[in-house]
Amino acid sequence: MENTMRDRLLEVATELFAAKGFTGVSFEEIATATGAECTLPAELFGTEEKLYETVLEIQFGLYRSRMQTALQGNYLPTKKIERLAEAICELHLQLPHFFPLYYRELLSPSQFFEPIVKKTIRHVAYLSDNNIAKGIQKETFKYGVNPANATMFLMGMFHYNFLSSQLTETLLPELGDYEDYRDQALTVFLTGINKGA
Amino acid sequence: MENTMRDRLLEVATELFAAKGFTGVSFEEIATATGAECTLPAELFGTEEKLYETVLEIQFGLYRSRMQTALQGNYLPTKKIERLAEAICELHLQLPHFFPLYYRELLSPSQFFEPIVKKTIRHVAYLSDNNIAKGIQKETFKYGVNPANATMFLMGMFHYNFLSSQLTETLLPELGDYEDYRDQALTVFLTGINKGA
Repeated sequence: MENTMRDRLLEVATELFAAKGFTGVSFEEIATATGAECTLPAELFGTEEKLYETVLEIQFGLYRSRMQTALQGNYLPTKKIERLAEAICELHLQLPHFFPLYYRELLSPSQFFEPIVKKTIRHVAYLSDNNIAKGIQKETFKYGVNPANATMFLMGMFHYNFLSSQLTETLLPELGDYEDYRDQALTVFLTGINKGA
Repeated sequence: MENTMRDRLLEVATELFAAKGFTGVSFEEIATATGAECTLPAELFGTEEKLYETVLEIQFGLYRSRMQTALQGNYLPTKKIERLAEAICELHLQLPHFFPLYYRELLSPSQFFEPIVKKTIRHVAYLSDNNIAKGIQKETFKYGVNPANATMFLMGMFHYNFLSSQLTETLLPELGDYEDYRDQALTVFLTGINKGA
């Protein structure tokens, strides 16, 4: 019973922190939104900060494990990039609060930016970086491509789309759906870095 | 004299709104930061909202005119894309508060989101969209490229880099400098959409 209410409080807190930022949310608001006794959030989590830390740990933990799954294993570098793009698009649909939480931390870093946000993003960036470096070694990707830059291009193609489209309507009426967007982004990116091109 | 103080108040307000968001800034703080009489911001701008609106109008006006300059005139579509990339990188260096103001509006839209932010971004997106469509017509770019998607890829490659690097240190130590990043991003993007590829 207490576990269920704990989960519910975490769910609502995640939503509120994503929508309003860390400083915009109080235990009172979270309790009201869940119908819990107003003392319960403090009993279960101590402080708003501690609750926010727990939310970030869960969300960035999920991000990390999904990106790892995409980038690890015995796949060719090109396949890993395809798996990564798919994982990012799925994450956006399944964990819609992850990206706003992440962008808010980039704009106004909290005390958890270094230990949770940056540590996770850096870990994933290194995995992607290594994958692209391996593709250059294998002569699949062009020599001269900077793997760190290429990781940023790839992430940017997807992140900016989410930042714009999740929070507003689409900017351009003919903007395709996600799958179409993902496939075209992959084609442009892979054609752009492939050795053959 | 009053004009100079007005400019100074606008400058400080732009910086504070970019750093803390619209709701995080008061006339009192702006007056204190500039050394102005604490009644002066209200005398000159009326309300915090009106001041925020003025800041957005100036910043998005500058964005619009620079992007227009890049995308208009008698240049080939490829050249216009190069000019756009250059203009975005320059803007980032010369108007460092524009991007945080824009991202904050995407995350927490104010009443000025529709009339200022979205209107401007949509206008620039259409110009880029038209340029890519023209490149397809001229058979420079591949038939089948969705111009709206391609605009998002291009913007994303730059925006996400700024979002990550401006507000934190670079994620990956070997990340090249801006010019290097810009040139590689352009190469990947143009190779990816060119008909020859």
